[in-house]
Amino acid sequence: MKAVVFDGELRVDDVSAPRCGAGEVLVRVTKAGICNTDIEITRGYIPGFKGILGHEFVGVVEEADDEGLAGRRVSAEINFACGRCVYCLSGLQRHCPNRTVLGIQNRNGALAEYVAVPRENVVLIPDEIPDSRALFIEPLAAALEIMEQLPIGPAHSVLLLGDGKLGQLVARVLASTGCRLTVVGKHAHKLALLADTGASTVMLGGFRAAKHDIVVEATGSPSAFGLAMSSVKPRGTVVLKSTYARGFSFNPSAIVVDEITIVGSRCGRFAHAIAFLQDTKPPLEKLISAEYDLDDAVGAFTMARSHTALKVVVKAGG
Amino acid sequence: MKAVVFDGELRVDDVSAPRCGAGEVLVRVTKAGICNTDIEITRGYIPGFKGILGHEFVGVVEEADDEGLAGRRVSAEINFACGRCVYCLSGLQRHCPNRTVLGIQNRNGALAEYVAVPRENVVLIPDEIPDSRALFIEPLAAALEIMEQLPIGPAHSVLLLGDGKLGQLVARVLASTGCRLTVVGKHAHKLALLADTGASTVMLGGFRAAKHDIVVEATGSPSAFGLAMSSVKPRGTVVLKSTYARGFSFNPSAIVVDEITIVGSRCGRFAHAIAFLQDTKPPLEKLISAEYDLDDAVGAFTMARSHTALKVVVKAGG
Repeated sequence: MKAVVFDGELRVDDVSAPRCGAGEVLVRVTKAGICNTDIEITRGYIPGFKGILGHEFVGVVEEADDEGLAGRRVSAEINFACGRCVYCLSGLQRHCPNRTVLGIQNRNGALAEYVAVPRENVVLIPDEIPDSRALFIEPLAAALEIMEQLPIGPAHSVLLLGDGKLGQLVARVLASTGCRLTVVGKHAHKLALLADTGASTVMLGGFRAAKHDIVVEATGSPSAFGLAMSSVKPRGTVVLKSTYARGFSFNPSAIVVDEITIVGSRCGRFAHAIAFLQDTKPPLEKLISAEYDLDDAVGAFTMARSHTALKVVVKAGG
Repeated sequence: MKAVVFDGELRVDDVSAPRCGAGEVLVRVTKAGICNTDIEITRGYIPGFKGILGHEFVGVVEEADDEGLAGRRVSAEINFACGRCVYCLSGLQRHCPNRTVLGIQNRNGALAEYVAVPRENVVLIPDEIPDSRALFIEPLAAALEIMEQLPIGPAHSVLLLGDGKLGQLVARVLASTGCRLTVVGKHAHKLALLADTGASTVMLGGFRAAKHDIVVEATGSPSAFGLAMSSVKPRGTVVLKSTYARGFSFNPSAIVVDEITIVGSRCGRFAHAIAFLQDTKPPLEKLISAEYDLDDAVGAFTMARSHTALKVVVKAGG
């Protein structure tokens, strides 16, 4: 089958199709999205990465022990956990120390014609959610993870840094809490997509740092860390959503002096994302900048790296 | 009067004695302690610092509008707040953006024969607390601040990095919560001082990083930050107590991937420290490594910088 492989070099390659192991389900991928983490991997974020990229996808079940699954439209939670450790037993499979992660850690991803995933990771997509929104289940779950980690509500002034792929989803999640939300971005056309959310939007160039209760950093750029720190009130909270290939110079004294709390936030629960799509019906299809055939996936990555693009989608099959 | 001045160079100088402003109290300093923050200031932690150092002290009221105060044994909260802003009105004077800070920020300190402080900052020292313990009220309040920021109890495994001046106090505070406490240090004789607390103690060289629910970094050394990060469980909390003159290279991706929370923690309430001294009667006088006359304060700083010393005290008068 065709697949998007990275092993130091990014290319579309012909590889063996995955085989269904015990307890696994084979999915024929319909579409897969390119995430910033995929881009960071191609920049060396995970040293030694070799394999098929991609962890945001929609597909149709091709083969499963469970006959009720065959032909169903699905996606899958990306952390494949051991099911036996203290994290798994407390519902935090996403932190299982023995986990593999789809397209990220010791597990081939979904930017391919087929992907095999454990049965317990498979999530059925309700009919009312079209592929063009279902593609966002994984990053939307990551955005909703913030709500599982700290209370946010109408009493809070919240600053979101980032109008990109993840920022757009985080903005919609934050707006749904009733907080006083300001979104800072670098692109007028991306900020404009948030017009229906009620958030205040500001171009970075015109932004005058005011102090907020909560600042969420979702730019993907290390340079935003300093802006996040200078925009949070004493005793306030900075939520970090971005992972970077490279570090930067840092002095935690400011965290100590102002007693700032920094909360790292990663993946969330797919069930929450599906419920959010059903309840709030966000027009996420607006975030799709382009769709490429799998043969042109290298071009899709080039497009995804451009600052003007939002979500770039790869069509794997039909 | 004689005072310990730093303006790029550290020396004992003859300066004008402070005069009591409106609402202020003049205190004749008995003894003052040298804190890591003082040492960091002499290393350039606060660019442009000029003035008298010192913020841990015990003294006797020499002059006050309030006659009941004259001759009383006191210390003073070190953050001098405006009393009008949203922080002051919510009891967080320690975060007043208009504050000055004794011996740290735009306010002469207590390593001197006399110090003037606002009446509302003065704290009476109960007779049952001797000077040799009262000297620790300020850093003990800082240690107790952790308890105001996050719940810690018998369910938690807690790792404390640092057996120094602040680490000793943090260890006693943590031990009082009933948590499973391990203290890692570099000095057998300092770790031995914790024998009565019930904490497990480990020399850094023999420490094998195990994962803990909570890690408290109180070493004063930037190199401990990495150890703190590698010793905390996913979804765990790292508490930072140290401020450093210099930064270091840092990549927050590990915070994001493991969803770590980092909590900066600084000053606390003196009333809590006094209550802790009364309730638990910790033998803090054991932590005093040496006492120097004010004339020899430069020597006291040299001693305080040595890795074998704990608290070095300067006797300012009688």
